[in-house]
Amino acid sequence: MAGLQQGEVPVSQDVSVVGVAMTSMHRRDQAPEAMARQVVAQAMADAGLGPADIGLVVMANALGGRLSDQGCVRGQSWLRGAGLTPAPVVNVDNSCAGGSSALHLGTLAVRAGQSPVLVVGVEKMWTGDRLGTLAGIEDGLPADERHALHARHENSSGSVLMGLNANWVRQQLEDRGTTLDEIAATAVKARAQGARNPSAQFRQETTAGEVLGSASVVPPLTRLMCSSFTDGAAAVVLESGASSGAPRVRASVLRSGDGELDYHDRLTETAEQAWKEAGLGPSEVEVVEVHDATSAEELWALEALGFFRAGEAGRATVAGHTGYGGAGLYVNPSGGLVARGHPLGATGLCQVVELVEQLRGRAGARQRPDTTTAVAVNTGGIMGGRDAGLVAIHVLQRG
Amino acid sequence: MAGLQQGEVPVSQDVSVVGVAMTSMHRRDQAPEAMARQVVAQAMADAGLGPADIGLVVMANALGGRLSDQGCVRGQSWLRGAGLTPAPVVNVDNSCAGGSSALHLGTLAVRAGQSPVLVVGVEKMWTGDRLGTLAGIEDGLPADERHALHARHENSSGSVLMGLNANWVRQQLEDRGTTLDEIAATAVKARAQGARNPSAQFRQETTAGEVLGSASVVPPLTRLMCSSFTDGAAAVVLESGASSGAPRVRASVLRSGDGELDYHDRLTETAEQAWKEAGLGPSEVEVVEVHDATSAEELWALEALGFFRAGEAGRATVAGHTGYGGAGLYVNPSGGLVARGHPLGATGLCQVVELVEQLRGRAGARQRPDTTTAVAVNTGGIMGGRDAGLVAIHVLQRG
Repeated sequence: MAGLQQGEVPVSQDVSVVGVAMTSMHRRDQAPEAMARQVVAQAMADAGLGPADIGLVVMANALGGRLSDQGCVRGQSWLRGAGLTPAPVVNVDNSCAGGSSALHLGTLAVRAGQSPVLVVGVEKMWTGDRLGTLAGIEDGLPADERHALHARHENSSGSVLMGLNANWVRQQLEDRGTTLDEIAATAVKARAQGARNPSAQFRQETTAGEVLGSASVVPPLTRLMCSSFTDGAAAVVLESGASSGAPRVRASVLRSGDGELDYHDRLTETAEQAWKEAGLGPSEVEVVEVHDATSAEELWALEALGFFRAGEAGRATVAGHTGYGGAGLYVNPSGGLVARGHPLGATGLCQVVELVEQLRGRAGARQRPDTTTAVAVNTGGIMGGRDAGLVAIHVLQRG
Repeated sequence: MAGLQQGEVPVSQDVSVVGVAMTSMHRRDQAPEAMARQVVAQAMADAGLGPADIGLVVMANALGGRLSDQGCVRGQSWLRGAGLTPAPVVNVDNSCAGGSSALHLGTLAVRAGQSPVLVVGVEKMWTGDRLGTLAGIEDGLPADERHALHARHENSSGSVLMGLNANWVRQQLEDRGTTLDEIAATAVKARAQGARNPSAQFRQETTAGEVLGSASVVPPLTRLMCSSFTDGAAAVVLESGASSGAPRVRASVLRSGDGELDYHDRLTETAEQAWKEAGLGPSEVEVVEVHDATSAEELWALEALGFFRAGEAGRATVAGHTGYGGAGLYVNPSGGLVARGHPLGATGLCQVVELVEQLRGRAGARQRPDTTTAVAVNTGGIMGGRDAGLVAIHVLQRG
């Protein structure tokens, strides 16, 4: 083991997740501050730390400026009275990937010697102003592209992002051999997982017939194949070193797209970097939370990430391999965006909360026994109408 | 020197500033993307690096959501085509302290082994929508406090923040013995510095009579004592280790207020932490950029930071000690917020650009010879009507 050079200090690369919490999802009656304070109190208690121990707070949120008239100091405003003084609060945004972006910064801060760090994501999407929420979601696109995207993807749902997703689905059906029945089975699996998750937004099981027969969003996508608006928050407490029994962050990799790649190729590129950084490959992963903005997307993402060959994720899902008690990779045990819910800036942290509970053996009715390696994949924004604004992959391992 | 324990890696605590750039201020004809791309290209050239070398981009902006309809992925949107692929872009906000918050995260990232890192601040405040800009500035207050603050501090300028500042000035005049003539002298000094800075927003010298006779903002503050709306951008490139001749970040300290302290006591608390982290005291600092939202504030901040005793900063300023060629601490060589300009999310980086140029001996007509130690003090947001949302202090030393 090498010694230290002048100006160097020894820093542990081990970052432990010592506390997690999340609200139940889709509470229309809770303000962002109530959700934020709740998860902070619970995550601190879970970590066995007091809020005054915290050295840095990274707060992710996407829609506060537009929907809550709280623009620049959201974290400070929503966490007042949470006892975090005098920790600095830094506010982070990356659309649907704000939570994982905040987690990345928190991980870097811990590796730089700052510890413990509190990472919080909170999102209030249900305000009664449906068009405002849609406009806030479209803030994940460059302003100068929105006009062209509306011209190209306008649809009765009002969401150009769902129009864009439908385009991807059509390509998936044609080029990869995925079938609508496979997509429906993926939605059925998501809802079955949601039924096992007390915090999920949608806790009713469904059938393939109900999925295919639900209201059309943008053909071929139906309502039950798509994520919805969600209120919710999640928090994660990170500490330096190998804390006994606490899961570790083995890799934290972000990439931003510039419109040069298709989103799925950006996923592949980011995953390759994550496997390299973690020193393992997709075959060693037991549980994954992927960014299923739609159930179709879950399947293509699994393939892009290297978990399945092109067109094979759907067959595995139909065979029951990817759900609770399945024979293979356990995908979106929380229910994913489609069933657990998708509170934009919190989503990346909701994924990590689920994986940490799996790694600690505390996931209750959805627990996979003896989980040792788990991965969270969170994405946000669309660049150039086809690339991602950000892809984040976190590889976690049992402590 | 101790060796390494299991799981530890050697990390250089030296963070070098290897490239800087800023736009000239107050260009009404430039879009945020044009300003952002300009400073990135110039900072990369200054660093002798290509954009593809960059491992992380931290982008600060405060008003893009409200004034440019660019909410969640501002950095990715404004830096498209800048060649930064595939560096991740993380978007940060902390009102007037976004730039220094981004710099802090960049510094932590470098200390965690990520290098080089690009930190960018950009702000477009002149859009023709004056009330929109004022509302965006008030996003630096908790939404639920704005009503009460408007009731308490409403004034003809339309800015409750200037009302709040005027309150502080009245307290300063009464409690600290500061005089209006000293505040006017501070504004005169700011404009004299601005006249020496080709990038400054205001490059006309002024007199104490003109300052005191200019339009009232909120008594006793007059127009020429106050910062104004500014368009501008700045960028800083950070690298790990002691790069030859490049200034180093000796301390990077942030604190968030919760309304429990007066802002100036929060400044004092943060400064004490910064001196401890840098291993030096205020008497060793030769150049400082303080957050002079008003010229009155420059004086009180200098005292709160420990550079002068209560009431003495004004006398030193009148005596000419704090300006170009002065006998003491050289304060706001760039012209500060009052003369160089205050492009919210960029301001903290504008300060650092000036200090790096001073430390490199490249500050032209405003150069202090043989500068070795310089400090940037940036603040943002108001909590509880009297505390800061964030205070950031960066201590820089010659490489």
